[in-house]
Amino acid sequence: MGRVYLVGAGPGDPELLTLKAYRLLKEAPVVLYDRLVDGRILDLVPGEKVYVGKGEGEGEKQEEIHRLLLRYARTHPYVVRLKGGDPFVFGRGGEEVLFLLRHGVPVEVVPGVTSLLAAGLPLTHRGLAHGFAAVAGVLEGGGYPDLKPFAQVPTLVVLMGVKRRVWIAQELLRLGRSPLEPTLFVERASTPRERRIPASLWEVAEGRVAVEAPALWILGEVVRVFTEAKERLVQEALALGG
Amino acid sequence: MGRVYLVGAGPGDPELLTLKAYRLLKEAPVVLYDRLVDGRILDLVPGEKVYVGKGEGEGEKQEEIHRLLLRYARTHPYVVRLKGGDPFVFGRGGEEVLFLLRHGVPVEVVPGVTSLLAAGLPLTHRGLAHGFAAVAGVLEGGGYPDLKPFAQVPTLVVLMGVKRRVWIAQELLRLGRSPLEPTLFVERASTPRERRIPASLWEVAEGRVAVEAPALWILGEVVRVFTEAKERLVQEALALGG
Repeated sequence: MGRVYLVGAGPGDPELLTLKAYRLLKEAPVVLYDRLVDGRILDLVPGEKVYVGKGEGEGEKQEEIHRLLLRYARTHPYVVRLKGGDPFVFGRGGEEVLFLLRHGVPVEVVPGVTSLLAAGLPLTHRGLAHGFAAVAGVLEGGGYPDLKPFAQVPTLVVLMGVKRRVWIAQELLRLGRSPLEPTLFVERASTPRERRIPASLWEVAEGRVAVEAPALWILGEVVRVFTEAKERLVQEALALGG
Repeated sequence: MGRVYLVGAGPGDPELLTLKAYRLLKEAPVVLYDRLVDGRILDLVPGEKVYVGKGEGEGEKQEEIHRLLLRYARTHPYVVRLKGGDPFVFGRGGEEVLFLLRHGVPVEVVPGVTSLLAAGLPLTHRGLAHGFAAVAGVLEGGGYPDLKPFAQVPTLVVLMGVKRRVWIAQELLRLGRSPLEPTLFVERASTPRERRIPASLWEVAEGRVAVEAPALWILGEVVRVFTEAKERLVQEALALGG
């Protein structure tokens, strides 16, 4: 029985792979990969590549992935299961680990840079955010998440929330977040085609903001500091320097 | 004026450095590093190493770090500022970026594997945790954090919380978390001297749990799945296999 490595691919940039992920990808006889893994990372893999991607909320496919993992573990000395970001942050890595252990397959998890960081925004910041939270806009199976436990955190990161952004924004307003709160969508974060879309929570709730999935969505005062404040500082520095 | 790279060193294991962090560390003329950066990672650095560490809540030292960064940026072609975990997750990276920009120093942030993942536990898990949050037990300057916005999240990770664990546990009980909730402290996570200490929230609140800082503290049902359930599965698999 081969060993399965559950490996985080990071947010997209191949240089943000860990040394361990890079080594495993270079040596692995077979790599099973997700929809959200960047093409430039797959280009690094000399071995067999098997696509096991699924869309948002397509929970039924998870069992198929389990079966595939088991089949490859039985026929290969080791298998890399590659996931965008980190396997243990909305990656369903926990389910895969338990399934494999239950079938006697040794598993090792190799953490990656979580895609929560792909926007290049600090999630905590002195005086503005002494903590943060992250929630998915779609539950496994397609259900709507309970946002109440997350409504009051200073910085909130929403993953897989693009399609339901109007509902999420309305729900967060109802739960007491400010309509003027600055938020930022980052499409294809950490790739050459990244696009950043700032909007207030109210604008999103009104259905005025066009965004394409997949995108990160960050809500909170850290957005203001790192868009307005940073741009002003860069402009000032340029004016002084030039 | 040299460029400053704010680099995340990850949780401890040198193989969890990103390719980019590794390259920068190997080439940097000077590396300014924190207390929480692993010694095995510092051993990789051929250039000058400058310790700028500070204890928990020693906010006054942050200005000293700013001054040092500026001084080294003025005299070196580039400078690596190395932080444990990720610079933008409780790393005060945001403050350092804004300070440097304000002084006309170009800055680039290189994200790392956050130490929130160092325990090897999934932060989200189907049916148990559709999101998570992280909070520090000590504010910059030493203050006590407001835990109310974090009290109801399914998985809660507390950083820098060891010294105040009794207060934090009592506060979370008062705010409605269950006394029976499983929690896990992980001392020196992702290092060879890691030690794992499971305890219910009630036991921590009663002052019955001995822990040494620094340690991660994870609260929530994911702890149960990945301690009890995983151990049972491994035992069963061993019994079947042997």
